[in-house]
Amino acid sequence: MSKLQVAVIGAGYWGPNLARNFRNSPDWDLVAVCDLDEARARKVVGARSTVEVVTSLPEVLARDDVDAVAVATPAATHAAIVTAALEAGKHVVVEKPIADGGQAGRAMVALAAERGLTLMVDHTFCYTAPVLKIRELIADGSLGEIQFVDSVRINLGLVQPDVDVFWDLAPHDLSILDFILPGGLVPTAVGAQGADPLGVGQSCVGYLTLPLPGGAMAHVHVNWLSPTKIRQFVVGGSKKTLVWDDLAPQQRLTVFDRGVDLRATTADRTAAQVSYRLGDAWSPALKEAEALGVMVAEFAAAIREGRPPRTDGSAGLRVLDVLEAAGRSLGEAGRLVPVAGNVGAGAA
Amino acid sequence: MSKLQVAVIGAGYWGPNLARNFRNSPDWDLVAVCDLDEARARKVVGARSTVEVVTSLPEVLARDDVDAVAVATPAATHAAIVTAALEAGKHVVVEKPIADGGQAGRAMVALAAERGLTLMVDHTFCYTAPVLKIRELIADGSLGEIQFVDSVRINLGLVQPDVDVFWDLAPHDLSILDFILPGGLVPTAVGAQGADPLGVGQSCVGYLTLPLPGGAMAHVHVNWLSPTKIRQFVVGGSKKTLVWDDLAPQQRLTVFDRGVDLRATTADRTAAQVSYRLGDAWSPALKEAEALGVMVAEFAAAIREGRPPRTDGSAGLRVLDVLEAAGRSLGEAGRLVPVAGNVGAGAA
Amino acid sequence: MSKLQVAVIGAGYWGPNLARNFRNSPDWDLVAVCDLDEARARKVVGARSTVEVVTSLPEVLARDDVDAVAVATPAATHAAIVTAALEAGKHVVVEKPIADGGQAGRAMVALAAERGLTLMVDHTFCYTAPVLKIRELIADGSLGEIQFVDSVRINLGLVQPDVDVFWDLAPHDLSILDFILPGGLVPTAVGAQGADPLGVGQSCVGYLTLPLPGGAMAHVHVNWLSPTKIRQFVVGGSKKTLVWDDLAPQQRLTVFDRGVDLRATTADRTAAQVSYRLGDAWSPALKEAEALGVMVAEFAAAIREGRPPRTDGSAGLRVLDVLEAAGRSLGEAGRLVPVAGNVGAGAA
Amino acid sequence: MSKLQVAVIGAGYWGPNLARNFRNSPDWDLVAVCDLDEARARKVVGARSTVEVVTSLPEVLARDDVDAVAVATPAATHAAIVTAALEAGKHVVVEKPIADGGQAGRAMVALAAERGLTLMVDHTFCYTAPVLKIRELIADGSLGEIQFVDSVRINLGLVQPDVDVFWDLAPHDLSILDFILPGGLVPTAVGAQGADPLGVGQSCVGYLTLPLPGGAMAHVHVNWLSPTKIRQFVVGGSKKTLVWDDLAPQQRLTVFDRGVDLRATTADRTAAQVSYRLGDAWSPALKEAEALGVMVAEFAAAIREGRPPRTDGSAGLRVLDVLEAAGRSLGEAGRLVPVAGNVGAGAA
Repeated sequence: MSKLQVAVIGAGYWGPNLARNFRNSPDWDLVAVCDLDEARARKVVGARSTVEVVTSLPEVLARDDVDAVAVATPAATHAAIVTAALEAGKHVVVEKPIADGGQAGRAMVALAAERGLTLMVDHTFCYTAPVLKIRELIADGSLGEIQFVDSVRINLGLVQPDVDVFWDLAPHDLSILDFILPGGLVPTAVGAQGADPLGVGQSCVGYLTLPLPGGAMAHVHVNWLSPTKIRQFVVGGSKKTLVWDDLAPQQRLTVFDRGVDLRATTADRTAAQVSYRLGDAWSPALKEAEALGVMVAEFAAAIREGRPPRTDGSAGLRVLDVLEAAGRSLGEAGRLVPVAGNVGAGAA
Repeated sequence: MSKLQVAVIGAGYWGPNLARNFRNSPDWDLVAVCDLDEARARKVVGARSTVEVVTSLPEVLARDDVDAVAVATPAATHAAIVTAALEAGKHVVVEKPIADGGQAGRAMVALAAERGLTLMVDHTFCYTAPVLKIRELIADGSLGEIQFVDSVRINLGLVQPDVDVFWDLAPHDLSILDFILPGGLVPTAVGAQGADPLGVGQSCVGYLTLPLPGGAMAHVHVNWLSPTKIRQFVVGGSKKTLVWDDLAPQQRLTVFDRGVDLRATTADRTAAQVSYRLGDAWSPALKEAEALGVMVAEFAAAIREGRPPRTDGSAGLRVLDVLEAAGRSLGEAGRLVPVAGNVGAGAA
Repeated sequence: MSKLQVAVIGAGYWGPNLARNFRNSPDWDLVAVCDLDEARARKVVGARSTVEVVTSLPEVLARDDVDAVAVATPAATHAAIVTAALEAGKHVVVEKPIADGGQAGRAMVALAAERGLTLMVDHTFCYTAPVLKIRELIADGSLGEIQFVDSVRINLGLVQPDVDVFWDLAPHDLSILDFILPGGLVPTAVGAQGADPLGVGQSCVGYLTLPLPGGAMAHVHVNWLSPTKIRQFVVGGSKKTLVWDDLAPQQRLTVFDRGVDLRATTADRTAAQVSYRLGDAWSPALKEAEALGVMVAEFAAAIREGRPPRTDGSAGLRVLDVLEAAGRSLGEAGRLVPVAGNVGAGAA
Repeated sequence: MSKLQVAVIGAGYWGPNLARNFRNSPDWDLVAVCDLDEARARKVVGARSTVEVVTSLPEVLARDDVDAVAVATPAATHAAIVTAALEAGKHVVVEKPIADGGQAGRAMVALAAERGLTLMVDHTFCYTAPVLKIRELIADGSLGEIQFVDSVRINLGLVQPDVDVFWDLAPHDLSILDFILPGGLVPTAVGAQGADPLGVGQSCVGYLTLPLPGGAMAHVHVNWLSPTKIRQFVVGGSKKTLVWDDLAPQQRLTVFDRGVDLRATTADRTAAQVSYRLGDAWSPALKEAEALGVMVAEFAAAIREGRPPRTDGSAGLRVLDVLEAAGRSLGEAGRLVPVAGNVGAGAA
């Protein structure tokens, strides 16, 4: 099977990672790296290499030896670049968020469908071993009915002029939720609370509340203000509760048996409180692999099999719709507001 | 110095712990344990003991050899029992919440003041080594300006007919916030979101948002539905960030230096993201002691010195006011609502 | 069933813990606490109590209302006190080590057997939830054949004039090994290495090597010189490996599946090395209970059922024999030396 | 400054890592990869690359555009390859152990000195952030006098026909000890105990005891038989104790203050034992960087500055001498035996 040929557009923060993974992949031949800044692109390509450096987007899109492009440019440029690439007949994988607005995103998804091209969003976390395992444990019923999901993502972030902590960090959590929840991320409403203790004009600490169909609730805490990372993701199910601590390398996923009937607890409340946990815990072996490597393999497989990739344009839109709803809730003192996309989906 | 004499009222879940600590205290002489259920009270007293067992509250309150009572009965009974005790001239420490409504609570505080008696609320967590140290590190400026506080308290809880997860668990977090924040817990508003995935008629998963004066925000996640405990409390300050993980016995408190200037981060976003943390971390030695032992010592000291105890009736009221506001916010889809008590405070 | 009556001899470091557990036990009636220092004994008894304080050992042993005694005095006094108690017809539980020499220990065991009395050694760790579970997992074959056991016990210790780190700390590890190994602790030899970096005249850091029948090996690291505790106990079996970290309250025991065939590893050495572990991990629920409470219950059960307790005098002797052999190995530059007791056992 | 030119010899397990780091280094130009297996070498080089693939060692060594070689072949071949490279005038970095015997190792070191060429041993761990920091904290006196060092390295290993666990794993620990101890690794003697519970004919579990000048002791536990990794390194000093847990990414190094005077502990033994630690703990920020990248930079700097690299041939010899002494101790039931090299050092 011959390799697919790809060019990486954008040699900034994420582009080098994409380039490295396409290079190491048995599915792909990295043909070129494109950036307005030639030196930056050349650095990604490295010495003693025949991968080409291009500074013109039209030039890359005009090449016959490019089947697909990977777009790692700022979100505000996604719509224009992705649209041009699709119109040039290239398959596309684009960084998240898919676009900076729902309308642009919908147009991109429609264009890809119309042209019969693959449009994938690089929801990288969905290709990590823990998230793939969580999806599996929910899908096969191991956890039971989902009762709550709580995600905490505390990082030292970069206060940026044009983006708040929701748009910067929450796409990670929302894309994971979209990937693991059986019906995708279709909350019945969205509530958002934000704080700007530095007075920079936008939220640096943010909380999202996402009531789910059936009475469950997802909640996301994103935070730029801590010099230490916390990445903790809890899925509470009727049978088991799963804790993913991404910073505990030996025990990243732990699944806790309920171990006791809820009524049994009633009888001896003291016992329940002094014990640190009830029931056995189990930590599944994870098949470690670099997520981006799994992502580029999925991109190739989707193109070859003519099927939607796991994190397709629609997944990108669902994430985008929640982000836009969060903005509206912030304007209404955190009140739960409906999600535009879901209404559309319901109407369809 | 002669010992103060005390009776414990209520021999249920918490009463035995109070009794044990009064017994072991050099400040106190435990005279009697009072409960309607004589066998239960007798079990608390134990064999080969001359501590008395009493089944009548008036009988205990009428005794001359009782200076103070500790009330560990259901919240709905607090107002009546505490009022009777104060009227009998006894100093009182009462379990949290101080009462089941703001009006009753205010009356109790007023009565104690009028009679010149000590009224203390057993906010036990405020007497633990980590909380005492957090208060100290905030008070002495080590953390800088507080930017956010995030508290997570996930337990396997007891679904009760008359109380939701906010009233059951959040008093712990709120009393800690009240204790460590320089001005006490006086949020500018309260937002609450709750979920009832079991369909039991009240929230089993709850989130509280508490904007603080100056742009900071406190947030509380209380949750009954997990077979494993999570107790994580993060205080983000302008100088340092503190993480309290109550289940990590060797490193319960960790203080993280910011370590880099925020602007410096901008220059090399990649570096900031690949490193798990920036700057040194420091874990202060904690002087371990049973919190209830510290609490009963404070109760004695407050009585002897004629000063308010660290967690006095007013602290109990501030917690109560937030709980009541949370209920109102729940009724308004999570919108931020004002806190009754603070209005009063502002008017004063 | 009437309660057994017990007196505690020695109100120093450990005696108060014994007294408290006998007091709280449904099996026992604590009659008296005996110590040459009356004030110290009185403090253990506490206020408003009718438990008696006695300063004369003969007086306690002469009482008819004392079925058993618990001896918590210095090791050098065990032989005399235990012998007197047995001769007075009392059942005995004694702190570890059972005696300060093998000869005295053997005489005590023989005397108890002759009088038909229970002689138990307080190997407290053998009554903790983790050790009980480890014993069970070895006994039922879950771990497979034992290949190695490695125990690390690092504490800040008290440099004492008359005892080295082996005699102070290793009895804990040796008693655990004796309890969990199917045939008890009968190493084929003992090697010991010690260091005295402070120049205090005896080992403050010690290592014991204990080759076991069948080619396995146990190893113990005891260390007084660290301000932080490490308590880590690893049991490597042919099927699974168990790690007990006593300072990780939520995950004290973890059992790791081998997960791969050893030959399979050969094929891809890299994979084995980059992954933190292979196979699933499992952390059994532990039924938490205070170990001393379990111990006093076992003492009562052994007396009532006329059977040897789980940690009987012979267990104490096996531990003692290893300690004595370790001393000989230290004198021979760490060379493996035979264990006296095992020779005797073989000859029997 | 022009780049130094290098060829990697051996494209097996470790060679690809070396190649990748030379490629990414600003100091180096990777000219060729040499392996008898051309396909294996070609895979290391990758697609769209002009790095050459060579199957003949003499051909590589004859090239003028090769300043240095990195040797990543089996230990038994090191002497022949390194000697040929030095005779061809190339600087050399070689994998550990430097050779499979002391005599060969000494000849290599002598030849490099004679030719004025750099001979470096790839003691990779010495270029990791934790080890560099430990060295610094010992060198600047932060830890005080070293009292003990304890290293545990438990991995699932590959049982190999020609090498035991000491030769496979202990070079890591010994090279670290050599790097951090002020005078290098010059133990006064070596004791070794090994176990072969699988009956494979060589030790799979091993313990090394290394008394150090001044009464301190280093100890190493290497172990192939566990499906889970443990990598724990404790340095006990008179002022502080340092714990390096390589699997705790957020807190890899922790430094514990003694916090109390030893005598003070005596007074209240109970307090010392119930507390998990005494004194503050501190976890220094580590500047994360791939160790091999730091190593290749040091190799270039040593060549350019004409100075010995940090882990030079002599360091490799000190490690080798301990391994050989360990073999002799194993033959004498674990008795402490002298180290050959140190005698020579003493005589010099």
